[in-house]
Amino acid sequence: MFPEYDLIVVGGGHAGCEAAHAAAKMGSKVLLITMNMQTIAQMSCNPAMGGVAKGQIVREIDALGGMSGIISDKSTVQFRMLNQSKGPAMWSPRTQNDRMRFAEEWRIALEQTPNLDLWQEMVKGIVVKEGRVVGVRTALDIEIPAKAVVLTNGTFLNGLIHIGEKQFGGGRSGEKAATGITEQLVSLGFEAGRMKTGTPPRIDGRSLNYSLMEEQKGDEDPRTFSYLTEQPIQKQLSCYITYTNEAVHETLQTGFDRSPMFNGRIKGLGPRYCPSIEDKINRFAERDRHQIFVEPEGWNTVEIYVNGFSTSLPEDVQYKALRQIPGFEAAKMFRPGYAIEYDYFPPTQLQLTLETRLIENLYFAGQINGTTGYEEAACQGLMAGINAHNKVHGKDPFVLKRSDAYIGVLIDDLVNKGTDEPYRMFTSRAEFRILLRQDNADLRLTETGHKLGLASDARLEKVLDKKNDLKRLLNDLKQRKMNPELTNEGLEELNTATLREATSALQLLRRPQIGIAELGRLDADLQQYLQRYPKEVVEQAEIHIKYETYIDKEQKLAERMEGLENHQIPQNFDYNKIIALSAEAKQKLNKTRPATIGQASRISGVSPADISVLTVYLGR
Amino acid sequence: MFPEYDLIVVGGGHAGCEAAHAAAKMGSKVLLITMNMQTIAQMSCNPAMGGVAKGQIVREIDALGGMSGIISDKSTVQFRMLNQSKGPAMWSPRTQNDRMRFAEEWRIALEQTPNLDLWQEMVKGIVVKEGRVVGVRTALDIEIPAKAVVLTNGTFLNGLIHIGEKQFGGGRSGEKAATGITEQLVSLGFEAGRMKTGTPPRIDGRSLNYSLMEEQKGDEDPRTFSYLTEQPIQKQLSCYITYTNEAVHETLQTGFDRSPMFNGRIKGLGPRYCPSIEDKINRFAERDRHQIFVEPEGWNTVEIYVNGFSTSLPEDVQYKALRQIPGFEAAKMFRPGYAIEYDYFPPTQLQLTLETRLIENLYFAGQINGTTGYEEAACQGLMAGINAHNKVHGKDPFVLKRSDAYIGVLIDDLVNKGTDEPYRMFTSRAEFRILLRQDNADLRLTETGHKLGLASDARLEKVLDKKNDLKRLLNDLKQRKMNPELTNEGLEELNTATLREATSALQLLRRPQIGIAELGRLDADLQQYLQRYPKEVVEQAEIHIKYETYIDKEQKLAERMEGLENHQIPQNFDYNKIIALSAEAKQKLNKTRPATIGQASRISGVSPADISVLTVYLGR
Repeated sequence: MFPEYDLIVVGGGHAGCEAAHAAAKMGSKVLLITMNMQTIAQMSCNPAMGGVAKGQIVREIDALGGMSGIISDKSTVQFRMLNQSKGPAMWSPRTQNDRMRFAEEWRIALEQTPNLDLWQEMVKGIVVKEGRVVGVRTALDIEIPAKAVVLTNGTFLNGLIHIGEKQFGGGRSGEKAATGITEQLVSLGFEAGRMKTGTPPRIDGRSLNYSLMEEQKGDEDPRTFSYLTEQPIQKQLSCYITYTNEAVHETLQTGFDRSPMFNGRIKGLGPRYCPSIEDKINRFAERDRHQIFVEPEGWNTVEIYVNGFSTSLPEDVQYKALRQIPGFEAAKMFRPGYAIEYDYFPPTQLQLTLETRLIENLYFAGQINGTTGYEEAACQGLMAGINAHNKVHGKDPFVLKRSDAYIGVLIDDLVNKGTDEPYRMFTSRAEFRILLRQDNADLRLTETGHKLGLASDARLEKVLDKKNDLKRLLNDLKQRKMNPELTNEGLEELNTATLREATSALQLLRRPQIGIAELGRLDADLQQYLQRYPKEVVEQAEIHIKYETYIDKEQKLAERMEGLENHQIPQNFDYNKIIALSAEAKQKLNKTRPATIGQASRISGVSPADISVLTVYLGR
Repeated sequence: MFPEYDLIVVGGGHAGCEAAHAAAKMGSKVLLITMNMQTIAQMSCNPAMGGVAKGQIVREIDALGGMSGIISDKSTVQFRMLNQSKGPAMWSPRTQNDRMRFAEEWRIALEQTPNLDLWQEMVKGIVVKEGRVVGVRTALDIEIPAKAVVLTNGTFLNGLIHIGEKQFGGGRSGEKAATGITEQLVSLGFEAGRMKTGTPPRIDGRSLNYSLMEEQKGDEDPRTFSYLTEQPIQKQLSCYITYTNEAVHETLQTGFDRSPMFNGRIKGLGPRYCPSIEDKINRFAERDRHQIFVEPEGWNTVEIYVNGFSTSLPEDVQYKALRQIPGFEAAKMFRPGYAIEYDYFPPTQLQLTLETRLIENLYFAGQINGTTGYEEAACQGLMAGINAHNKVHGKDPFVLKRSDAYIGVLIDDLVNKGTDEPYRMFTSRAEFRILLRQDNADLRLTETGHKLGLASDARLEKVLDKKNDLKRLLNDLKQRKMNPELTNEGLEELNTATLREATSALQLLRRPQIGIAELGRLDADLQQYLQRYPKEVVEQAEIHIKYETYIDKEQKLAERMEGLENHQIPQNFDYNKIIALSAEAKQKLNKTRPATIGQASRISGVSPADISVLTVYLGR
């Protein structure tokens, strides 16, 4: 009934959609299997994409030829570039999205992708032959053959929903859990664990009093996630900010004895940086209020997402506490918040391609690897899809280095350090964050994406144009001399030293007081000239000039790191024979089996001393 | 946590949406509870509204102030007026709809309805006090108080999905079943039964060869369902027609031994007039082909609905057979067809208001009453919503007579005759189908709908304008004399007798050869005059004049019927004391307890002789 596919992707969330799209786009015959085609690409948690470090990931996905940026742009209701007061490494795009549009646009995109078939059913297991996956088995007992399989089961594997003292099986509110896969994988030798995450109650926006909240508008000059999107959003919706207070906290505390978080019913660890409200008032008892973001769920719906109020307390406690928040006095709930426990597989069982070590051609992506977040899931899906395609077609693995992309940091962290609580990305996880900016993801990755056969020709042309423009502009700014007579008055106004002799525009731009805008105001001709360039090229030039020292420094560091990264360790290397290694290092290295000294250096428990020993031993 | 609602509606399908909207619009405080707010108003079966007799129902719902027509208009991808070659009683509007848009528009409409709250959870039972419903109990064990409850559970009550020899619990493909309600109602004394329905496989439209099928376009001059919609659809999508053949039938037969229909695993009866393909080739063995309608699921999706190929045969048999249909040689399935069994409650347990006889203020609407079809469900929801509102507010019951509306026929049939197979509407079920036309539903019902507080002022104004226009136009056509000298040449061309003296336009219109169009061509002045009227008024006048005799005859019959209908039977009447009644009649009458002699006359097993006896006894 089914042909043999190159790749079967199990799950239609952010990871599954990117995996299926990427492999199909590269030419694989792909089948995406989802339990319900009506709920493909649900934003199960808040209706937003991006944010600090996560926005960079979306830009990277986009630069490689993935879809998350494009889909997000099509469904944006608000755009904000976070951290614009900080340096460019911290700039982070974030959108609020229309939940329904987002899901619909993904579905349309998948349907329009050649080589990509869809099938609605639950997958209950994989089919393995001689240590290699050769297909999946569905609830109807259909065996669908495939050369590779990507599992992206999200929170569905033995999903268990908790609200107060109640528990029921479910993959998401109102949806069935998936069963069978964990048990089989464990029987095949995989280690499985349990994690939890949670979501806040959903509110009827008609019942809120926004006049008691602080309005948060979108940027006046909104941008886009995708380097391809030509037209940024015109009209935007606002979010609102309000705060909990001591009365809210006291009410919440009345439910603690019935909380599955505190009475031990929930076994799995939750996301540290996205804690439930009960967790926050428990862990930060000294704080008398917590911020609540009131986010619209879309253009046409009154449904509201109460960001910051994730909870699994009994629904009556949720309700009473909510109503003590300013603006929520008459709030009506559409559904209560809940916690969900689900199975994951510690990602140290993966290779850097996201292929499992135990079963050949089997890949894991998304929450199944212990991550949290749409962006984290999507980029893993993309990488698993690319690598499954490459593997099946006899091509080289595609691994991004920590200095290439946040995606590289994420996967390297997962595979080498593992995680026992839901892993989310932060800029602080990256050593090279001046290199890994949201503005240059295309410069970093699009040529690679195009070589992979994923990024389109149009995308490549666009980035080559940008590169050429940038080169020409940088050169021109270097050549262009600013005349003291013409500019000194302006310089004085800017509180910066006047010129004695003609000085290049590039030199002036290095001064902290002078940005491109100021430079243009100093010299009308230059301003006119600059207008010939796209805005992002001018911005890029400014960043290059102003941060040149930092960029160069990180670049050199990255190259040194790369030395370690390129220093391979044989896969069957016997660590026990190096007596000078610490016992812990031996144990960890034997377990993780890093591919390079670079990887080895990032394993927790492996000290710099161990690395020196190893480097010497391996004959560096 | 919840206030006491006037009405709780359980279920967010066609019935539930109309019930909740109607009662809230009329001023009740309403809570709609659904298992999943993402799947409100799903078109679970084919993406179409209306059709023969069903299109009339949609027009009636609209005329009363319901939403199905408006929602359908907002999501139409194709409009056809069926049976235009037949008399106006048979004209039936039908649309193909965009499944996603339809659901989204309903959700937006519900969210925008004041007094209407939404809650996402499974309801596991009702709360009853002293024979009266006082609320519902949810899966979280929340008791939500209400003065009345409408149950619209569709196929979810103990839903069991069958595909070949496989079975699993589910309310629809990919969705959970609902449990608890049936068991409770049975313990309260309700009789429950089991029905089944089915749905075809969904297909990837990219895999079809349309050049081997017959295109079916929408009308060139499309109309709308709602009397309020000003702008009919501009662009339309086509459907396609193809046929099964003997090879297809033979392949299907290879699965008969594994069919849950034929091996007794399915206990419930399915819809006679919407049989599965295996049922068709079994029951109509002499036919060597069956028609298949290939229907698009929406503007932006490639998903295709294979109307006419509903099946619960094993998925491999479905697949093989499908691929033998012309145009389907390379067909790819998105999901297999399946049968679903679910609980229903024989509707003889209801009053004409759809309130149950056993539990006060408890109403049933939709498939729970043994019907099939979106339109049948929607109109029951509307009527239950109206009646629940009226009851709770101490107002009179609202019952439509068989001569008022198809809706009246439907509910009268259900309550008095019951049904043991899924009931769908046909024109043949109506005695007064010349009265119950799609073109005059507004004239029949909008004033009533407005008095109920449901139809808006704008709607009423529109229908009053139409009435006035119609009256004036009919009068003018009566007064207007057609001059023999000016018209006789034209009359000859039309092969109809010439005039000797001036004759009224109305007289001429009575001739079968002359319609309004012809009349206009005979007299340029008249044509210009007619253009001052809206198209639907001119059409209405034409129907009135041409079918006057039939309309009058049916009107008189209806009045006679009404005599019987108005002849009340006391609710505690003791049929056993009338010796002349047949034993069967006594039994049926005691069980059904008709409110009027009219109702009694339509109970199967109650003969005209019994009715005479009853009429005499009750002192007519």
